[in-house]
Amino acid sequence: MSEKSTPSEKNITAAIIIIGNEILSGRTQDANAAFIANRLSLRGITLHEIRVVRDDRAAIIATVNALRARYTYIFTTGGIGPTHDDITASCIAEAFGVPHVIDAGARARLVEYYAPSGTELNEARLRMATLPQGSALIDNPVSGAPGFKIGNVFVMAGIPKVMRAMFDHVETMIEGGAVVLSSTVACNMREGDIAHDLGDIQNDFLDIDIGSYPHTGGGGAVTGPSLSIVLRGTEEGRLTDATLRVADMIRKRGDEPRISGIKN
Amino acid sequence: MSEKSTPSEKNITAAIIIIGNEILSGRTQDANAAFIANRLSLRGITLHEIRVVRDDRAAIIATVNALRARYTYIFTTGGIGPTHDDITASCIAEAFGVPHVIDAGARARLVEYYAPSGTELNEARLRMATLPQGSALIDNPVSGAPGFKIGNVFVMAGIPKVMRAMFDHVETMIEGGAVVLSSTVACNMREGDIAHDLGDIQNDFLDIDIGSYPHTGGGGAVTGPSLSIVLRGTEEGRLTDATLRVADMIRKRGDEPRISGIKN
Repeated sequence: MSEKSTPSEKNITAAIIIIGNEILSGRTQDANAAFIANRLSLRGITLHEIRVVRDDRAAIIATVNALRARYTYIFTTGGIGPTHDDITASCIAEAFGVPHVIDAGARARLVEYYAPSGTELNEARLRMATLPQGSALIDNPVSGAPGFKIGNVFVMAGIPKVMRAMFDHVETMIEGGAVVLSSTVACNMREGDIAHDLGDIQNDFLDIDIGSYPHTGGGGAVTGPSLSIVLRGTEEGRLTDATLRVADMIRKRGDEPRISGIKN
Repeated sequence: MSEKSTPSEKNITAAIIIIGNEILSGRTQDANAAFIANRLSLRGITLHEIRVVRDDRAAIIATVNALRARYTYIFTTGGIGPTHDDITASCIAEAFGVPHVIDAGARARLVEYYAPSGTELNEARLRMATLPQGSALIDNPVSGAPGFKIGNVFVMAGIPKVMRAMFDHVETMIEGGAVVLSSTVACNMREGDIAHDLGDIQNDFLDIDIGSYPHTGGGGAVTGPSLSIVLRGTEEGRLTDATLRVADMIRKRGDEPRISGIKN
């Protein structure tokens, strides 16, 4: 879809930056991007890009600076632990041109978190309290060391359980957009048979984002055609009209559409 | 890791571009990037970036042009079907500044694929044979319509089963780099306790990429610390030396390291 077809009264945009060699080497399957994408979708925030970059200073700095200028919110995950490969905080400081300093609030959280177990707050652990100057802290109820926010950039941990807990706090710090509603019309048509008509419907509903997703069966051979047409938009009436138009078109072609997501 | 720490005799690099609103809306979890990442890793090709972009002409064109100038190979998935939202081929043509035309070879494959079922090769299906001029075809044994290669850009389907089949052909068209070997040292130490020593080892082995990945348990509460230290490099002897050094360090700190991936 071109941008004009996914309007929202409040156009709030976002990008996600996943930082970590382990994703790019194929060792680890990222789960954070899909989690954040879902939560943004529920808040009416349009996610424009996801980028996965290496633990490389130049790559992180360039990516953060390119994206923070372009979108309302940037969310990063990964690289904020105590080891030598945790370079996110220092790269974000450089991207913003601010000092990378021990944050008194973050340090206090580490002291409190480690005190019960008598764990030493050594130099390595203090890295986790060393943040871009002027950052606000993001709560970490799972493992103590906070994430942080500077400007429009929210910096979270890479461990999914920790990231998810941090995101609960992040959600209190961001503004949502017009909520996007969606519907699905499933059928057994082949894409190529309805593509022309579907294109016509899209042209008549430029405010509705219509996507067509064929799926093959999970087994070794291709099973019968199966197609989901997903419609997304911010106005319920328009979404319903477009959905019924797609369903009608499929019915006229002799298949029985299965509609979900609208009242009818 | 900085780039200098992951050298290879033949430095072959890559980026992946995942095209599709359905990933960014959170509706679909992408599985293609991890698959390609794994296969590239086995071939000694260093994956530098993954980008997920919307079905948006400007975004696709800008991303393809930025990345194809920077890396040896670019792999794209998604947006090559017959519907209005399948705009990848036409965007790639525009990115390369070549006409977007019906490819005789691709058309012949569609004719052959659809003939047995008597399926009409209509205008919508012909979109799947309309490619950037000068493209080479990528076989699609699953559903007929080919992918294509132009310059250093390999364009594949978004449906995972189709993409995987296409990638088998793509692998015959690309050159591998020095194969990267990896080892893992697992232990029950906390990252913060070994971070300093691990940084020292990294400094002594700049040709080995050392990553530290803590994991929390899957349940509701944090279980005991559990840590995987992953080492990657192209020289077996150096990898073994670095791995044993990490294991020794952990042993000295009173834990029993579990080593995998090296002969010892």
